[in-house]
Amino acid sequence: MDPRTGMPRVGMVGGGQLARMTQQAAIGLGQTLRVLAVSADDSAALVTPELEIGIHTDLVALRSFAQGCEVVTFDHEHVPTEHIRTLASEGHAMYPGADALEHAQDKGVMRRKLRAMGLPVPPFSVIPADANSELTHKATEEFAAAHGWPVVLKTCRGGYDGRGVWILKDSAHAAAVLTHLGSAGDLLVETLVPLDRELAAVVARSPFGQAAAWPVVETVQQQGICVEVIAPAQNLDDARAVAAQELALSIAASLGVVGVLAVELFEVAPSAQFPGGLVINELAMRPHNSGHWSIDGAITSQFEQHLRAVLDYPLGKTDAVFPVMVMGNVIGGSLDSPGAGMGMDERIHHLAARFPAVKVHLYGKSFRPGRKLGHVNVGGSDLAVTRRTAQLAALWLSDGVWGDGYAIHGPADDASDSPQHQRGTDRGAR
Amino acid sequence: MDPRTGMPRVGMVGGGQLARMTQQAAIGLGQTLRVLAVSADDSAALVTPELEIGIHTDLVALRSFAQGCEVVTFDHEHVPTEHIRTLASEGHAMYPGADALEHAQDKGVMRRKLRAMGLPVPPFSVIPADANSELTHKATEEFAAAHGWPVVLKTCRGGYDGRGVWILKDSAHAAAVLTHLGSAGDLLVETLVPLDRELAAVVARSPFGQAAAWPVVETVQQQGICVEVIAPAQNLDDARAVAAQELALSIAASLGVVGVLAVELFEVAPSAQFPGGLVINELAMRPHNSGHWSIDGAITSQFEQHLRAVLDYPLGKTDAVFPVMVMGNVIGGSLDSPGAGMGMDERIHHLAARFPAVKVHLYGKSFRPGRKLGHVNVGGSDLAVTRRTAQLAALWLSDGVWGDGYAIHGPADDASDSPQHQRGTDRGAR
Repeated sequence: MDPRTGMPRVGMVGGGQLARMTQQAAIGLGQTLRVLAVSADDSAALVTPELEIGIHTDLVALRSFAQGCEVVTFDHEHVPTEHIRTLASEGHAMYPGADALEHAQDKGVMRRKLRAMGLPVPPFSVIPADANSELTHKATEEFAAAHGWPVVLKTCRGGYDGRGVWILKDSAHAAAVLTHLGSAGDLLVETLVPLDRELAAVVARSPFGQAAAWPVVETVQQQGICVEVIAPAQNLDDARAVAAQELALSIAASLGVVGVLAVELFEVAPSAQFPGGLVINELAMRPHNSGHWSIDGAITSQFEQHLRAVLDYPLGKTDAVFPVMVMGNVIGGSLDSPGAGMGMDERIHHLAARFPAVKVHLYGKSFRPGRKLGHVNVGGSDLAVTRRTAQLAALWLSDGVWGDGYAIHGPADDASDSPQHQRGTDRGAR
Repeated sequence: MDPRTGMPRVGMVGGGQLARMTQQAAIGLGQTLRVLAVSADDSAALVTPELEIGIHTDLVALRSFAQGCEVVTFDHEHVPTEHIRTLASEGHAMYPGADALEHAQDKGVMRRKLRAMGLPVPPFSVIPADANSELTHKATEEFAAAHGWPVVLKTCRGGYDGRGVWILKDSAHAAAVLTHLGSAGDLLVETLVPLDRELAAVVARSPFGQAAAWPVVETVQQQGICVEVIAPAQNLDDARAVAAQELALSIAASLGVVGVLAVELFEVAPSAQFPGGLVINELAMRPHNSGHWSIDGAITSQFEQHLRAVLDYPLGKTDAVFPVMVMGNVIGGSLDSPGAGMGMDERIHHLAARFPAVKVHLYGKSFRPGRKLGHVNVGGSDLAVTRRTAQLAALWLSDGVWGDGYAIHGPADDASDSPQHQRGTDRGAR
């Protein structure tokens, strides 16, 4: 316990945006998040005084960090499970535990476990790391012979945001990819599932065994990166929504997850193979991009809930506050964009002028094309308006360009003339 | 600008809970709040890495602090205006400025200005600091002779939460208080206004002159300390609500306020003297207790809005998210309370079990009877239920006692058996 406040000290390994937003939630709970970051410039390192610098693969650094914490949790899935086991055996509370976390670290382990649980996963095969590219090609061809081309090839470990995933359309394509793959560890080959859309069921679970689920959301990806989340997923059959929540809760319970668990799902046409119309794609055991809407859109955000869960506090209500909320990711745009020269401070200024109800969440990162720099949340009652606003806002912050040609110096299109919002007479020139 | 992020550095003088909650808002905007605190254990000092230790009356410390900031603002009203003027003259952006801030620092200056503006204030008289207690008594009696006993005596400077305010029922009472008062600077004597209830109109204004008002709220005080805020104020006449907002906006514009301005009001029976049924009590030029509900209950919180205002960003929407939200202050209870031995960590645990929708905001302060330790926000649609929940939650965190005799080990009275909230089978013993 922090002797100054009597409150528990939660440590998060990794200094990314998830830790940054967890610090916001920690402040409300009377805490200060402790962060083990690689650099003092990391997203979360910029916003907490309880910072240690160290690498998440260094057991000595992890141990030193854990000694100052009541509970240690993770901003990412890259902490070696052997280190987590070692520290747990030394008496440190490490959540999620290694037995659970390996299912989020290794797609082969995850697929085998979920198949054993009888949950809907595509047919797959794991190709061990020691296979050379010729043997791997042979295994891929055998899998395709049984299930048909195209097939999906994934690295079992380390992939994210579309990296480490290839859709192989035929044998020649497979050969070309595998030749350039080099040593990528175990590989997973599975069938390509024809999907209607992607969903995510996000839940949290405490050591006590209490669990809570947020409304199921729709996630929209571009080039393997999540660009948009619609909460709740629109026109989703009630029974299927409950099935998705129950599926995520059952995974959390079976794997002994502690903290937030995001289950990425494909919604498909119901078939003999997938009678429920759901297929599990990936698992993440931490706050997840598909839950960012909850900061502004749910009674309890995923960041507060993650803290409550790892501290074994009773969990908070997960009800949505708005009829619909849309989250748009802010992803560094092209350096050739006409708006590329405009800094984020100026972009926010113009965004605020045009859309005073948009909630901005920036991660304190320097600009780089393709980098997740932040996100926006927009709540509303009309899906089309809400979604359009979120898309325009996210594009503007990403590229410095209004997607609809809006002129910066024009009048704000949703300004209000009511007494609640008025301009004074001394506005001066800008 | 912070070279690491390209974002502005806002500095807040004072390390209290207002700065703490402003840091939460700053994180979302991609910033890190810089804080000048008296101690490294101050509420806000615990949650930001951008900390300087120094006293707010020390010009050298203020100057050094200001040099690292694009804008300097305040957690409290105790920074000497001459220091603010000096630093402004040296080119630092200090918001609110000294000309505005002195109206929140000195009740005599405030009363004179508002009377000159034709705004509803009670009859008053300012007794200069150089009057001895006998002369002060004489001035008080003269005022009472004209306006009748009882009268309200206030120190013009430094009072808060009921300190520095006395209701004098007659001449003998006045003599007794004045004898013990010592040198308290200028004094304000004014009539006691028979009030129906207290309201607050909270607005924000930017240097550009844009202003925005939140819904008018009702504030409930006990022994001069705000214990509860109901947002929006219930059964408030629409025209009177708009009048209260316009009054606050006009004060903000006339005084050139930059940042949040809270106008504490009395609602009274309309009379020839106060035809609008409103009387101005106090001003605060910073985020204010009466706006804490906005963190969970408005599109834009007062803390984010204060940052937007002092940075001259366009202001955010101020609409309420819930039909009603009740804020309850958590104020350290008696050491004789049966729950006094229970730490805040354990109190939160039990609170979360009983009321999973209550939002907790703790300030990281050690326990002391009478000390503001935090607040709770509860949103809902039924006033009675929402208010009762907030009162029970605030009392529980304050005193470690359930006001309704609820048994801690009993079943939670608003737990849900829906799939959204379920308990696993491995709950084990606690």
